[in-house]
Amino acid sequence: MAATMKDIAKKTGLGLATISSYLNGGNVREKNRIKIEAAIEELHFEVNEVARGLKTNRTKTIGVILPELNIAFCTQIITEVEDLLRNQGYATIICDCRSNEKREEEAVEFLLHRRVDGLIIMPSGKHGSYLKKFISAGKPVVLIDRELEEIECDCVLVDNESAVKDAVEKLILAGHTRIGIIIGPSDIYTAKRRYTGYCMAMEQAGLAVEERLIVRGDYTIEGGAAAMKKLVNKNPDMTAVFVSNCEMTMGAIIEINELGIKIPEQLSFVGFDNLEFAKANIPKLSIVTQPTKEIAGQVFELLLERLEGTDKQKKSQTVKLKTGFIEGKSVNVSGRKEWSSIY
Amino acid sequence: MAATMKDIAKKTGLGLATISSYLNGGNVREKNRIKIEAAIEELHFEVNEVARGLKTNRTKTIGVILPELNIAFCTQIITEVEDLLRNQGYATIICDCRSNEKREEEAVEFLLHRRVDGLIIMPSGKHGSYLKKFISAGKPVVLIDRELEEIECDCVLVDNESAVKDAVEKLILAGHTRIGIIIGPSDIYTAKRRYTGYCMAMEQAGLAVEERLIVRGDYTIEGGAAAMKKLVNKNPDMTAVFVSNCEMTMGAIIEINELGIKIPEQLSFVGFDNLEFAKANIPKLSIVTQPTKEIAGQVFELLLERLEGTDKQKKSQTVKLKTGFIEGKSVNVSGRKEWSSIY
Repeated sequence: MAATMKDIAKKTGLGLATISSYLNGGNVREKNRIKIEAAIEELHFEVNEVARGLKTNRTKTIGVILPELNIAFCTQIITEVEDLLRNQGYATIICDCRSNEKREEEAVEFLLHRRVDGLIIMPSGKHGSYLKKFISAGKPVVLIDRELEEIECDCVLVDNESAVKDAVEKLILAGHTRIGIIIGPSDIYTAKRRYTGYCMAMEQAGLAVEERLIVRGDYTIEGGAAAMKKLVNKNPDMTAVFVSNCEMTMGAIIEINELGIKIPEQLSFVGFDNLEFAKANIPKLSIVTQPTKEIAGQVFELLLERLEGTDKQKKSQTVKLKTGFIEGKSVNVSGRKEWSSIY
Repeated sequence: MAATMKDIAKKTGLGLATISSYLNGGNVREKNRIKIEAAIEELHFEVNEVARGLKTNRTKTIGVILPELNIAFCTQIITEVEDLLRNQGYATIICDCRSNEKREEEAVEFLLHRRVDGLIIMPSGKHGSYLKKFISAGKPVVLIDRELEEIECDCVLVDNESAVKDAVEKLILAGHTRIGIIIGPSDIYTAKRRYTGYCMAMEQAGLAVEERLIVRGDYTIEGGAAAMKKLVNKNPDMTAVFVSNCEMTMGAIIEINELGIKIPEQLSFVGFDNLEFAKANIPKLSIVTQPTKEIAGQVFELLLERLEGTDKQKKSQTVKLKTGFIEGKSVNVSGRKEWSSIY
């Protein structure tokens, strides 16, 4: 028979309220704390988290909804957040939606039934209206990477416009003017912002934004490869390409390899994320990097503030972080030369 | 006020036992099922999984312990298993131990307190004695990828010896005799088995197993890069290398790129796992592949049998699956030529 709180009370001579306060992390006098911990040790007492969840209406569990568990950007952030949460006694239940809005909705329902205390979500869906139920239940939701227009909650983003604008400007400075872009689905927040960044860079340099140079992929490796193929077929005069996410960067490189195109001699290339892959490639790739550790830290802080902070009415916050850029050897700095001969 | 089982009983005119049977997935007559579902809909009844966990002593939650969430091999398997489990109404709580035995032990404790119904673990530790508590509580444990000698439970492995033996034989057939290997930590099951495979191939071909050609890494990208550097420094006459896991394969390629060594002209290369990376590399890498989807399917079946099967005393099973091999362009098939000039 497992020891109960009553056994601890009997053993220590303390009241149930004191034992309960201790177990729920409340203030307990030092001498009582010592007594309780000795009794816990002696009686092999284990807190039944399930029972505790019923009494406190807190399960100390956080739901995490990701579009793909196989996306390095997601796992890097979640590994960090999970660590930080575990240090505070929170477990995480991770759901992978395979970028499917229907499955995302199911995951939200599933986590509601599990009575999670809060939710971290990188949304796949466009509107996320099914999150409203969660928010109206008074449970905090933190969005990662993507904003949802209809949903008012905390959000940690990166500055996607500047990230892409800066990267494309580097290509322009190297003399390129016919710069292709592989961009994500038109209904995903990051894809919209990154596309804006591309247009800003081109327009400010007085270059036309040409439709033939813009191809959409679905943020997967396969999608990146298919988009690269299309881009090359449509644009024999393209001298540089920017790929706007990690998986499509790998896919584009696979296709470039397949087609036998030489980087940077025949095509200059700037990718996105995945530093290790960029270093392993011949030549090393120039890439935009995202501050995954910092994102994780911000998500954790926002969530903990909502879960344990005092100001329950605090206005929702949006944190926007700066991206980085790693210089590789995939950009031909004399891009202008190759096509200037046309004139 | 949320609707309760009593409200459903009142609404339908059925007994509580029938309602309970329905909610727990038991057999209920068709006409009663229809009545119950209509009442659930009308009363907005939601099953409180926390409360249900207390009554049935089942939380319908499975714990998953991984050495690293950033290892593609792990996430590929877990994505699959999670899908299969979710279809059966099980949630998963994933813990990442950062390949640290102490953290692994803490994760086991944590999941025990969470009253998970079963555990899937890819062990980081040598002995895993802290799993005994779990097993003696009558909860099923399924090991992935690595056996633990002291622990008697279901286990899904790949045939690591044959995987490496076959790969090294390909290098020998191509004419190579001084074949380096980057192998994992000596206390990890897979590293031991893979090392045996290397020795078997070399010895059966009448080649000496030379210590200078064997360097250990820690199954990380950084470890693979450092091991590659050591191997090249110690063996100027080495003509081929086999790298024995996914992350070290990437690390070795980063280092080869850093050193400016040409594959396959100066060094033939066979790696492990990560098909996409192998395809993106110039030249495409030859690699051993692991059947992650099949592994996931087996883990799921073994676990479900223990959780819901009838034979509770069933002897523990070890499933061993075959690996694959993808031919790239990273092996110089005339390896013999390069060094035959010595004679």
